[in-house]
Amino acid sequence: MTTRTETDTMGPIEVSDDAYWGAQAQRSLGNFKIGWEKQPEPIIRALGIVKKAAAEANMDLGKMDPDLGKVIVQAAEEVIEGKLNDHFPLVVWQTGSGTQSNMNSNEVISNRSIEILGGEKGSKKPVHPNDHVNMSQSSNDTFPTAMHIACAEEVVHRLIPALQVLHNALDSKAKEWADIIKIGRTHTQDATPVTLGQEFSGYAQQLQNGIERIELTLPKLMELAQGGTAVGTGLASPVGFAEKVAEKIAAITGLKFTTAPNKFEALAAHDAMVFTHGAITTVAMSCFKIANDIRFLGSGPRSGLGELALPENEPGSSIMPGKVNPTQCEALTQVCAHIHGNNAAIGFAGSQGHFELNVFNPMMAYNFLQSVRLLADAAISFTENCVVGIEPRLDNIQRGLENSLMLVTPLKEKYGYDRAAKIAKTAHKNGTTLREEAIADGIPGDDFDNIVDPSKMISPG
Amino acid sequence: MTTRTETDTMGPIEVSDDAYWGAQAQRSLGNFKIGWEKQPEPIIRALGIVKKAAAEANMDLGKMDPDLGKVIVQAAEEVIEGKLNDHFPLVVWQTGSGTQSNMNSNEVISNRSIEILGGEKGSKKPVHPNDHVNMSQSSNDTFPTAMHIACAEEVVHRLIPALQVLHNALDSKAKEWADIIKIGRTHTQDATPVTLGQEFSGYAQQLQNGIERIELTLPKLMELAQGGTAVGTGLASPVGFAEKVAEKIAAITGLKFTTAPNKFEALAAHDAMVFTHGAITTVAMSCFKIANDIRFLGSGPRSGLGELALPENEPGSSIMPGKVNPTQCEALTQVCAHIHGNNAAIGFAGSQGHFELNVFNPMMAYNFLQSVRLLADAAISFTENCVVGIEPRLDNIQRGLENSLMLVTPLKEKYGYDRAAKIAKTAHKNGTTLREEAIADGIPGDDFDNIVDPSKMISPG
Amino acid sequence: MTTRTETDTMGPIEVSDDAYWGAQAQRSLGNFKIGWEKQPEPIIRALGIVKKAAAEANMDLGKMDPDLGKVIVQAAEEVIEGKLNDHFPLVVWQTGSGTQSNMNSNEVISNRSIEILGGEKGSKKPVHPNDHVNMSQSSNDTFPTAMHIACAEEVVHRLIPALQVLHNALDSKAKEWADIIKIGRTHTQDATPVTLGQEFSGYAQQLQNGIERIELTLPKLMELAQGGTAVGTGLASPVGFAEKVAEKIAAITGLKFTTAPNKFEALAAHDAMVFTHGAITTVAMSCFKIANDIRFLGSGPRSGLGELALPENEPGSSIMPGKVNPTQCEALTQVCAHIHGNNAAIGFAGSQGHFELNVFNPMMAYNFLQSVRLLADAAISFTENCVVGIEPRLDNIQRGLENSLMLVTPLKEKYGYDRAAKIAKTAHKNGTTLREEAIADGIPGDDFDNIVDPSKMISPG
Amino acid sequence: MTTRTETDTMGPIEVSDDAYWGAQAQRSLGNFKIGWEKQPEPIIRALGIVKKAAAEANMDLGKMDPDLGKVIVQAAEEVIEGKLNDHFPLVVWQTGSGTQSNMNSNEVISNRSIEILGGEKGSKKPVHPNDHVNMSQSSNDTFPTAMHIACAEEVVHRLIPALQVLHNALDSKAKEWADIIKIGRTHTQDATPVTLGQEFSGYAQQLQNGIERIELTLPKLMELAQGGTAVGTGLASPVGFAEKVAEKIAAITGLKFTTAPNKFEALAAHDAMVFTHGAITTVAMSCFKIANDIRFLGSGPRSGLGELALPENEPGSSIMPGKVNPTQCEALTQVCAHIHGNNAAIGFAGSQGHFELNVFNPMMAYNFLQSVRLLADAAISFTENCVVGIEPRLDNIQRGLENSLMLVTPLKEKYGYDRAAKIAKTAHKNGTTLREEAIADGIPGDDFDNIVDPSKMISPG
Repeated sequence: MTTRTETDTMGPIEVSDDAYWGAQAQRSLGNFKIGWEKQPEPIIRALGIVKKAAAEANMDLGKMDPDLGKVIVQAAEEVIEGKLNDHFPLVVWQTGSGTQSNMNSNEVISNRSIEILGGEKGSKKPVHPNDHVNMSQSSNDTFPTAMHIACAEEVVHRLIPALQVLHNALDSKAKEWADIIKIGRTHTQDATPVTLGQEFSGYAQQLQNGIERIELTLPKLMELAQGGTAVGTGLASPVGFAEKVAEKIAAITGLKFTTAPNKFEALAAHDAMVFTHGAITTVAMSCFKIANDIRFLGSGPRSGLGELALPENEPGSSIMPGKVNPTQCEALTQVCAHIHGNNAAIGFAGSQGHFELNVFNPMMAYNFLQSVRLLADAAISFTENCVVGIEPRLDNIQRGLENSLMLVTPLKEKYGYDRAAKIAKTAHKNGTTLREEAIADGIPGDDFDNIVDPSKMISPG
Repeated sequence: MTTRTETDTMGPIEVSDDAYWGAQAQRSLGNFKIGWEKQPEPIIRALGIVKKAAAEANMDLGKMDPDLGKVIVQAAEEVIEGKLNDHFPLVVWQTGSGTQSNMNSNEVISNRSIEILGGEKGSKKPVHPNDHVNMSQSSNDTFPTAMHIACAEEVVHRLIPALQVLHNALDSKAKEWADIIKIGRTHTQDATPVTLGQEFSGYAQQLQNGIERIELTLPKLMELAQGGTAVGTGLASPVGFAEKVAEKIAAITGLKFTTAPNKFEALAAHDAMVFTHGAITTVAMSCFKIANDIRFLGSGPRSGLGELALPENEPGSSIMPGKVNPTQCEALTQVCAHIHGNNAAIGFAGSQGHFELNVFNPMMAYNFLQSVRLLADAAISFTENCVVGIEPRLDNIQRGLENSLMLVTPLKEKYGYDRAAKIAKTAHKNGTTLREEAIADGIPGDDFDNIVDPSKMISPG
Repeated sequence: MTTRTETDTMGPIEVSDDAYWGAQAQRSLGNFKIGWEKQPEPIIRALGIVKKAAAEANMDLGKMDPDLGKVIVQAAEEVIEGKLNDHFPLVVWQTGSGTQSNMNSNEVISNRSIEILGGEKGSKKPVHPNDHVNMSQSSNDTFPTAMHIACAEEVVHRLIPALQVLHNALDSKAKEWADIIKIGRTHTQDATPVTLGQEFSGYAQQLQNGIERIELTLPKLMELAQGGTAVGTGLASPVGFAEKVAEKIAAITGLKFTTAPNKFEALAAHDAMVFTHGAITTVAMSCFKIANDIRFLGSGPRSGLGELALPENEPGSSIMPGKVNPTQCEALTQVCAHIHGNNAAIGFAGSQGHFELNVFNPMMAYNFLQSVRLLADAAISFTENCVVGIEPRLDNIQRGLENSLMLVTPLKEKYGYDRAAKIAKTAHKNGTTLREEAIADGIPGDDFDNIVDPSKMISPG
Repeated sequence: MTTRTETDTMGPIEVSDDAYWGAQAQRSLGNFKIGWEKQPEPIIRALGIVKKAAAEANMDLGKMDPDLGKVIVQAAEEVIEGKLNDHFPLVVWQTGSGTQSNMNSNEVISNRSIEILGGEKGSKKPVHPNDHVNMSQSSNDTFPTAMHIACAEEVVHRLIPALQVLHNALDSKAKEWADIIKIGRTHTQDATPVTLGQEFSGYAQQLQNGIERIELTLPKLMELAQGGTAVGTGLASPVGFAEKVAEKIAAITGLKFTTAPNKFEALAAHDAMVFTHGAITTVAMSCFKIANDIRFLGSGPRSGLGELALPENEPGSSIMPGKVNPTQCEALTQVCAHIHGNNAAIGFAGSQGHFELNVFNPMMAYNFLQSVRLLADAAISFTENCVVGIEPRLDNIQRGLENSLMLVTPLKEKYGYDRAAKIAKTAHKNGTTLREEAIADGIPGDDFDNIVDPSKMISPG
């Protein structure tokens, strides 16, 4: 490996000639040999977006020489497009401000710009990583801005559409199965009837609510710290920079990013991350419930509840021949429980800012982006490999409905709670039918048949 | 103690003659000897609200005999006003549907109504706990409805006003201290200047955002399950009951309660509780950060950061004479860390619904209401006993500002990052001033004085 | 209310004449109007134990005048016995060191001692709350010591015996049901057989392991901070005090308390609390699993798994007559999910010590003691009101076993996995029996009958 | 890409010719496109260990043809050594039993064995993935066994040594700095003196305790499920297999693995994972506290506490020239907060077993192994790049000590708490020294000088 010498304020350091990164990224590789988690690609892309937007804003405001600004924009676009991903080797577990990843992006864009301009990589001329690429910026506003961009893009472009896919599949089943009457269950025990469609309509509603909740949180997630520079004051940035750069970022991404109304808050706290992740966790808990229900409703094939037949995607057991398992439910519930953990980590980290800065940035971003990616992927996988292929097992459903002692409930409207209870309890004790015991208790058979009709039990009135 | 015999479908049971409750509450006392946590008063009040609203709706819809309905309303109003709180002895850790507390309210209102009507307590005549007080209702919609009422009332009437009080105090300090320039700190290390007012403006913004976040979540928390009855279908309730009862509850409370669009979701999930508690946790994490900052800024008196003088409310130490401690910060941060735990519990519980019902109701409500109460009380206590009495320690603030090496930052705009860094590092190494080292490095003193002016460093441009 | 004037270093303050507490407790009542959670009784008792032990140690070491020491011991014993509980009115959410509760105990014991000696309450003579009752102590070592005493006593005397009761009931069922062969379930799906006894033996093992885990953690929980005084150095305590006071506490409690080997650790961290609570959480998660299984195994009565009949303790529904629910499972799982939240709170708090002190003491103690109380009470309630009364539903168990397709498994040993799978899948598809399809596939009926024998499937070989 | 046809009980599927894996792994790749997290290498290695040990046990017990067994052992050793890691492409978010990763290992070893024997990959002859490689095993015992092996190996070989490195560095500083007296701090406020060595001795004790706690948990983590097969009964495994395979695994790894005493517990619960991770979390919370202290003690350089000089490893700011930050503290605290989240996820998952199986295996293992890796790496990084290079800033330490008002404390022993408090409060109010105010209060200067001597304040007596 041939190397070149890069320098920073600590002195010289050797960097592989192939790499665009410079001294600070190289130093970070040596100082933070921690874990296997690299900065996620959405963060790298977002850093590129910031650098492009900042260069444009600096040019617009007359601070940046356009000859340099244009090439910075060009190099930043390569970062945005993912062409330089290999040049972002840093791990998550670095300085808590993300300074080293910000400098990584400054260095890569500096060196790539120098290369485009025919200069010498590592010379910092004519495009200096701090003085030009980082112009009017600090890591302290840049990295939180990149976090918000990455998280918002991933939520809008990945998570919400995926949840919508799951919602649509559940909603479609709700409509398809609107007329299949089955036993309801409360406390896991037999209860009055519902339709299978009603049951799935509850799931669909949970997804719809979940999507709406996430959307409610987005305006604040789309507030950007950029323009606060080092401590929130905006020192070393031109007047109007914060607003201008937010406009540029909105234009680049097509999302409604705005400048944060208070940059001190925007640097020192990550409450927007905590809150949006809370919304993500809420819908993850919804998904847990839904997937858990589906695996139980699909349990069996012969000694379970057996109301649903789930798609058989793979052999289920290495020892039990012919076994098929609700594996998509398992993948999804594992993801959801994992997100529950991420929520605890993000909340904790969100509380730990000190004075003008919160230094849990890369960790919060990593957990947030992981939750988004996992929930989106799992929602799609669960939909495609499970929900859409579920079939009702009508014979089992019918048998359960007929046997149910809770069909007694409407009798209470005419005969009172206590008498209805006595009938149900006697039937339970004797292993008889409600009808038998109702008649034995003096209720006319016709009256029983008229009242105890499941098709009348699935709505008010 | 004299007793009377009460009965339910399990048979007779003795109840103290003084008590309004009946057989099922009594049974619960025997079956659930768990912990010291009683059902919180806001839940009892909310059950009263439901019972009043349901009686009114049942009368309006022609299902309830007005002679009975009116007295039920009267008894329910006594529950609402807290007059019968002593008759709600049940603990949180009971059936997960809250059935026993619902029955407790049915029994109390039944017996109190019977008493008003001159009947015999325990006779269930002429007001039956199930057939009349619980008319058109199930515990499965009633208790979640009571949860939402209690939580929404407490959030609206207790928590948000308390957070507003804290916000206002922080905001007032932000304005009062707008011109006090001090050293900023990032990574806990010296950074470029901010005003003390700017620092507190960030805190105020966190509170404002926190309030707005909670408010965003309220419409769904104000959706009510009532009308879903046992499994969400509305069986045994008249057509229109759900809408009517929501209107009544809105009228009684003055809050914009609505009927949930999907009752299956409303019974089987408590996502609205999870989400609103996520918003509460977000602002609790904000409060943690703020209180933590204030204790460090107030640290000393002689060997800390010493920028703030916190009110001295009590002797701080049983052994160190004269010691004063940031005790309000400590109470608040303890509360916030506790709420972090409640959030984990509520999220977990929210995922554990099965089929048509989630049976973690009392526990979720308890944790939610505890978080609300604690955060509201602690915010008021922190405001009154700490924030309003904080004074800046101007001598310490000035000394810190003057000594700061990070005042070097604006030099980079004219002389470049690398040269500015060299000056700061040399001053640090030599224990000298920036000015000395800048001049030694060839920067004219006039130029230095013009550029390195803290009053120019607290805004862009 | 008549009052007397009490004083502390902040000046005079009026206190009710009925109260033994003094100025600092009174001040705390005014300054911390937060929540409904009082200091738990085990903490009050433990403070009494510390005060008695300290007075004894101070006398033994010749520092305390025995005439004063003896009466302090007498008053402390009244605290230990709970006679003065009404004089400990402070809430949990106070100074994080617990100083105010320590002073509360100093003041109560001071005033009670003065009363015994015929002096004037509030005079601090001849027994001064700081100089005598708190002699050789600081809140900073006293409150952590009281936490460890309270938590250890509650774990040893309440939690472990309760878990043992649950273990014994599960173990007894395991033995009683050793010969009831039933279908096993993995992934919630039908699997090869187990005995009902084996299933319960797993639960019993979880409890046994859980108890052993808690016990493993106790030696460090029984290490006491006392003797560290204000910052861990032991300033203002006589040489040998730490060891002496630990001996005294061990003698008073009958538990093997020792003096912590490093007092700096003992004041600044509460790792022993975090770890023991982790062990408690582990067994709480075990209990969640067990209770969840039992409610599903008891689901029905007609459309569930229906293998167990759970005791019917109360009417289950306010609307569905005759319904019985697994309410003890619900109470226990609510408790367990709550403890999961407490664990997050305690872990978070445990990380937040600063320098020589962690100031999340009362909150950590409250959560810990709540977990202990809830899990102990719920384990007893679950045992007595559910486990001991569970009966197997043999007809359902037998039917499930006979129908199971997973009885195919041992065929693979002779005929290979792929052929066995084909048989099971065909039977599943055709709704036939394994035997029919095995014979159709060419396996002799005799061979099938010999191999496919559930009684041979419940052990190796 | 050329492919070959692999088959399982679902039918044929094309697999890349380069790959050793078979139909089921291939199917999993299609069915679980979720996230970026692959099965960790320690799990792959552990699966290799299980397969080798099982083959050896099967041969020893006369069940496995030695001609096949030997080649399975050979192939498994290649897995153990990591030579076939590229052939384990599956993600974490798959079936919750880990069946697909178990089958991945069966398939890779089958095909590699077939290749060694000159057969045709995909033919399953003469080494069948189920009938031979998986002989006497089920995924349901194999994957939990692999989890325990992987976790125990990583804890023993990676985490504990790393924590020991950190402990040793802290302990070394504690000894080196035993005589540097400094101000202590409680509640973040000035308190009585400690030595810098005492302060670090507390940190060292936390690490030592943390290591001991983890070690306490290991015996149960080293209990293995292997031999339970599908549901814990051991069906389809020979008598003695469980004990034999545990011996083999102990021999291969050199760790004291044993067979779990109850296989039903071992499959259905992962309490050992929950508990050991609780111990890891405990020491992570310790590390959080220590790193947080060190960053505050190192704060400044001019407006912080300034008692420690931390190593300067990289430029701290992209905007503030010359800034140096406590980046290693930041990386470590991020890791610790992340582990707090993992603990919540693992606890939740641990509660969610159903009947004979917990299906959160890969997720629990991933989180556990991530915590181990991160804490180990961060402990090493923090030690090497921070702790060992810390220097005391003696001038600041001395100044803080001299100014401290809390040096008043020992005066109380002779003059009483109230008088000492008055002196301290007056000095605080007047900005004077304790000595000045003590003399003004009538205490002889000689007596003051004799009593108020920091060197006498750092120990009892």
